[in-house]
Amino acid sequence: MAAHPRLSLNQATVRTASLAEAIDAAVGAGYEALGTWREPVQAVGLDTAESMIEASGLRVSTHCRGGFFTVPEGPERRASIADNIVAIEETARLAAAGAPGSKPVLVLVVGGLPDGSRDIVDARARVADALAELAPHAASAGVTLAIEPLHPMYATDRAVVSTLGQALDLAAPFDPSVVGVTVDTFHVFWDPQVLEQIARAGREGRIATYQVCDFATPLPADVLLGRRYMGEGVIDFASLTQAVEATGYDGDVEVEIFNQDVWSAPYDEVARRTAETFSSAVAPHLAG
Amino acid sequence: MAAHPRLSLNQATVRTASLAEAIDAAVGAGYEALGTWREPVQAVGLDTAESMIEASGLRVSTHCRGGFFTVPEGPERRASIADNIVAIEETARLAAAGAPGSKPVLVLVVGGLPDGSRDIVDARARVADALAELAPHAASAGVTLAIEPLHPMYATDRAVVSTLGQALDLAAPFDPSVVGVTVDTFHVFWDPQVLEQIARAGREGRIATYQVCDFATPLPADVLLGRRYMGEGVIDFASLTQAVEATGYDGDVEVEIFNQDVWSAPYDEVARRTAETFSSAVAPHLAG
Repeated sequence: MAAHPRLSLNQATVRTASLAEAIDAAVGAGYEALGTWREPVQAVGLDTAESMIEASGLRVSTHCRGGFFTVPEGPERRASIADNIVAIEETARLAAAGAPGSKPVLVLVVGGLPDGSRDIVDARARVADALAELAPHAASAGVTLAIEPLHPMYATDRAVVSTLGQALDLAAPFDPSVVGVTVDTFHVFWDPQVLEQIARAGREGRIATYQVCDFATPLPADVLLGRRYMGEGVIDFASLTQAVEATGYDGDVEVEIFNQDVWSAPYDEVARRTAETFSSAVAPHLAG
Repeated sequence: MAAHPRLSLNQATVRTASLAEAIDAAVGAGYEALGTWREPVQAVGLDTAESMIEASGLRVSTHCRGGFFTVPEGPERRASIADNIVAIEETARLAAAGAPGSKPVLVLVVGGLPDGSRDIVDARARVADALAELAPHAASAGVTLAIEPLHPMYATDRAVVSTLGQALDLAAPFDPSVVGVTVDTFHVFWDPQVLEQIARAGREGRIATYQVCDFATPLPADVLLGRRYMGEGVIDFASLTQAVEATGYDGDVEVEIFNQDVWSAPYDEVARRTAETFSSAVAPHLAG
């Protein structure tokens, strides 16, 4: 069985799987690529993770995730910056261990409002500061930091970056090889400006990764877990995927689903169903 | 006891109250203004509602709500347009019955995706069509249609208009006295462009009403009911209110809270607590 050659299984889709189990699920379902997460990589250690990735023959499409650097200056901020520097190193090494075509891309979820704060403008300024501090580290490691705008329902608790346009504005001071953006259908499909901002992201060379999953209402009690397999919701994958492809993006397409039912299912079943729904709902709109 | 002179109790905050009960709660807590809802008005009939409003001495700040016209042409759409024309008439008559300073403003929640549709671009086009059809009716009745952008978490099931900028673009073809916008803190606070779009709304003469309530996480199981009293969440009422005031807006400020706990509390207590939290969190930022 072969999955689509551009499909990547983001590890968050099999969240409880170890790195070995995620690799097995991906390889078993015929994937060529995997998006790694920090926790399962750190659980085995980076050296071991490198060996496992190399032995798997999989490409690494992204490493998830850095960020969470909206707190003001102080020990907590220093710890976050230091941890992001570690994440940059992980990203570079995992991509080097992956099959040809692996991308040293670190996805950034920037963080919400600091505890007790109502100052979203200031939190956004702290994101810009963190990018300026991390960019030299990313550049020297050959890693692209991929700012991920999250759906505005997460603006205060997970990511004060809420639109693709805002992410591109934050990326603008930096070389596109160092700071790019993550385009995730779940987070951006509602945006009246999404198609023009995808085109802009392409013109500016900033699309570091394209992620897909679906959105449906009613949302579950924990809105973080409201993501669905492609085709099970209301997102128009045709227009969004065609817009991304029209920019010339030809990299892997990751499926990242936060959903308790998906997390509770056997990993091989999840990998297979992910590949099937990708083939039916997304693949027809890929340029090649 | 006197509430702030610019404070208006939107009837949705006392959702289970009859019109008589809502008027009593508002008058009893010293309010000068009320934002009416269609269902409780229709429950007593428009003639009676007019008399009650006139006898109350309250201003009518808005009438809520029209809209829900994203469906394609056909009987359902015709029924929606006809119902909106009725709502325009209600708005004109209630405002005329209210105390001096009443505003004939009909708030519009435009509707989500039609059943089975994934075409948000088309749904948005249907909104533009509906505005063009309703504008002459509003103009001849002296009513302002106030497009309300809703938080993007409602983009597919309640309102495909998600940002103030998008609402202003939709309003642009029409005279500002006929089509304006609703600025509701809960729906727009997260928007990186909110301050510049409020300024634009002011320049373009489009701010038909300003509504306030707070946002906090975690959201409740029904995300529609996630609104809070001002000061109980993370919204910065200072910057938003000052931005609205800086445009010269000097009308009523409505409090509209969808929250099961608020709806379950006695109406007089809700009116009082609304006035108190308005005084502490919003009033200090009003120009006058």
